[in-house]
Amino acid sequence: MNTLRLNHLLEKYQRKIKRIGPQNEMMTDIKSLLNNAIPTTDRRFVTEGIWAHQKLQMTDIPIEYCLFCLEMIYSNEAVELVEEFMNRTEHIYIIAPKIFQKLSDRDDPDGFMSVGILPIHDPAELVVRDDAVVVVLDGLESPGNIGTILRSCDGAGVDAVMICNPRARYNNPKMIKASMGAVFTVPIVQFEQPLQCINWLKGHNFRIYLADAEAKSCYEGNDYSGNTAIVLGSERYGISREWYNHSVQTLTIPMLGSCDSLNVGVAASILAYEICLHKRTQEGDCYENNI
Amino acid sequence: MNTLRLNHLLEKYQRKIKRIGPQNEMMTDIKSLLNNAIPTTDRRFVTEGIWAHQKLQMTDIPIEYCLFCLEMIYSNEAVELVEEFMNRTEHIYIIAPKIFQKLSDRDDPDGFMSVGILPIHDPAELVVRDDAVVVVLDGLESPGNIGTILRSCDGAGVDAVMICNPRARYNNPKMIKASMGAVFTVPIVQFEQPLQCINWLKGHNFRIYLADAEAKSCYEGNDYSGNTAIVLGSERYGISREWYNHSVQTLTIPMLGSCDSLNVGVAASILAYEICLHKRTQEGDCYENNI
Repeated sequence: MNTLRLNHLLEKYQRKIKRIGPQNEMMTDIKSLLNNAIPTTDRRFVTEGIWAHQKLQMTDIPIEYCLFCLEMIYSNEAVELVEEFMNRTEHIYIIAPKIFQKLSDRDDPDGFMSVGILPIHDPAELVVRDDAVVVVLDGLESPGNIGTILRSCDGAGVDAVMICNPRARYNNPKMIKASMGAVFTVPIVQFEQPLQCINWLKGHNFRIYLADAEAKSCYEGNDYSGNTAIVLGSERYGISREWYNHSVQTLTIPMLGSCDSLNVGVAASILAYEICLHKRTQEGDCYENNI
Repeated sequence: MNTLRLNHLLEKYQRKIKRIGPQNEMMTDIKSLLNNAIPTTDRRFVTEGIWAHQKLQMTDIPIEYCLFCLEMIYSNEAVELVEEFMNRTEHIYIIAPKIFQKLSDRDDPDGFMSVGILPIHDPAELVVRDDAVVVVLDGLESPGNIGTILRSCDGAGVDAVMICNPRARYNNPKMIKASMGAVFTVPIVQFEQPLQCINWLKGHNFRIYLADAEAKSCYEGNDYSGNTAIVLGSERYGISREWYNHSVQTLTIPMLGSCDSLNVGVAASILAYEICLHKRTQEGDCYENNI
């Protein structure tokens, strides 16, 4: 039944479809993407499998091309996704199971991969509502940490994640995986330098809080009214000095045991939830209504 | 200078020291530990490098044996740790740089590794103070997640972490690394079955809260008075059904975006901080005093 449907799709989208071997230039392209061997300015990323494509399906992210291995595709939901993505892209490549298996990081791959272009918002065009919350990540290095933070920001209802001093590539499969797809839905803005980010925040009346293990004041019990930005620093070096030259407040998460600090993904998540929940409680808006 | 000190130590602890080659049975032992190829009942773990040994130094964890590569040891702090651990263990093995490099997961290893025995507390002997907080992990599979949770529990001041349905090995290097050493300091109790854990908690007057994405009530704004246990379930299957057969409350962390749930390490950290901070505020005890 599904073989019939697949054959029908192959016929329908015939003009877009190419069968390619391991020496094809597209194989070189996808391998560089999977191995992070691309310039940091390249905003393309690879998505693999049913789950990630279901997330991608809900967005209007442009799809540059898709790779399918027909022998691996059999469930109804897989065939439906194939149909959706064959329709959505202009370039479809069909490859053999052996070649697909080599590209995949899974033991039992679903048989499809797509290359999309991640939307990084232009700060000049970002519109923020009143009483907005943004999370700023300064120089974070681990794609897994950034992914985890995007997932938590999506959950807490953060308005945007701002990345300055970018050190990790957005296309890194670990970022997409750890974000559980939130990398596609939470608005991401990038600033090369902290000063550009500070200027943007000041220009939009944000109060800036730096998460700093050395700070005297605890994150809990703060007012957090108005537009609120919380800044987290790199895993190794913390927050850039530049931030401290401006009007900012520092906050800490108390550490009562033997460790000096929390994992940055955990710290960002605790602060994002604290601030977002606080704002909603202040507004008399109950979280329960939104579950 | 440090070569002199090292030679002095070699002489002083001569009777405990053996120079071994790659075929020695101890090499097989440490390789099985590093590769998780040991029974789950084996509570031994491997620590590598200066940072982890400094953490270990602060505990009274028994050290089964140490492996040193003298050519890699040169800083003052490294030599001091060598002295401490040569004193502390009865079995010291000296190996060549090539062999050490193969064992190590680092590009530039510090030249020492120790095998210790992780203290897993007997529930019958665990004494809890009034108004205690425990975090229960039911069937968690990822050593990295458990490590992150131990680090956050250490920071928040959680009294014990209870592991039931154990699925991950405690010796996993990822757990130790993600815990930043908290695996050595936070009391860990293990129960094979949820029912044993439930009985222990009920017997010690704990109120039990299950973190459940399907729950109606939000984690925030709860009372959390008295002994409080918060239960988190496995990454794939959630909390075992058994828990729902008893008198428990369910709570959720609101998810306002496109994702269904948070990373379990993040969820546990948010809840641990919320409950511990709440208790301290209730007691009129200010976190700031403890920083």
